[in-house]
Amino acid sequence: MADIICLGIDPGLARVGYGAVVQSGFRLKALNYGCIETTPEMTFNERLVKIYNDIQEQINICKPDLISIEKLFFGRNITTAEFVWQARGVLMLSAAQNKIPTVEPKPNQIKMALCGTGDADKRQVQGMIQRFLALDEIPKPDDTADALAAAVTGLALKISI
Amino acid sequence: MADIICLGIDPGLARVGYGAVVQSGFRLKALNYGCIETTPEMTFNERLVKIYNDIQEQINICKPDLISIEKLFFGRNITTAEFVWQARGVLMLSAAQNKIPTVEPKPNQIKMALCGTGDADKRQVQGMIQRFLALDEIPKPDDTADALAAAVTGLALKISI
Repeated sequence: MADIICLGIDPGLARVGYGAVVQSGFRLKALNYGCIETTPEMTFNERLVKIYNDIQEQINICKPDLISIEKLFFGRNITTAEFVWQARGVLMLSAAQNKIPTVEPKPNQIKMALCGTGDADKRQVQGMIQRFLALDEIPKPDDTADALAAAVTGLALKISI
Repeated sequence: MADIICLGIDPGLARVGYGAVVQSGFRLKALNYGCIETTPEMTFNERLVKIYNDIQEQINICKPDLISIEKLFFGRNITTAEFVWQARGVLMLSAAQNKIPTVEPKPNQIKMALCGTGDADKRQVQGMIQRFLALDEIPKPDDTADALAAAVTGLALKISI
């Protein structure tokens, strides 16, 4: 079976986590991962451009077969939702322009894929990411770890694409 | 005073209205206007790419000094909001990449600019658009008329940019 590379993305405006994972048979290995950051000192337009340019760069680095971009869930916190959704639109556009298939796992699907239950807490998910990818420590910030979790989930879901 | 061109945009996923208006002194004139349409048969990714490419084309045609992109307001209709916000993110990105200043009038600001009251109804706004731009008829669909209204509002607000 050929290696498959999945780029996981945890969307946001101030922080966009990204993490590429390659699957070789049953083995998973982290490639490039990190966090795109934008600041409130930037205009909204500048932040969208930085997010777009930086994710394009990561796509060019890891050349993913699949992009797994977490589906956002907002409870009642509608104020910031609109900005994060707009940033997510830019991330989706980048995947689409590169003609890379996308999966959009919900938070509970990510928990299920990594921990076997949709009720797992953040620390459990992060612990499983460290274990699956044999990392010396849990990646920081949380957005980076969440992106790697989205990538592993994408590989688990890929049969259906 | 030099002519100023404002491209108005009414964001959406199925329909994105656009309309360019040039201001020469006190005279307003419509340039290119119409509606970008995407269908449910397309994937979400394909729809975002079409919206991005088509708005880029309109920007190239009218070379606006200013883009006025209506600020969305969703009451309780949250289900479709996420898709429209993501489409709006793509439109904002296009403006930002072209380094064109943006204004984001709210619906009631558009009503105020055109009709002098934030409580005006859609038909009043459309009637004023027809009158301001000396059009033979009200542009169809509504999204196109709304985009021209956003453009005129952008020109009215431009002093503050």
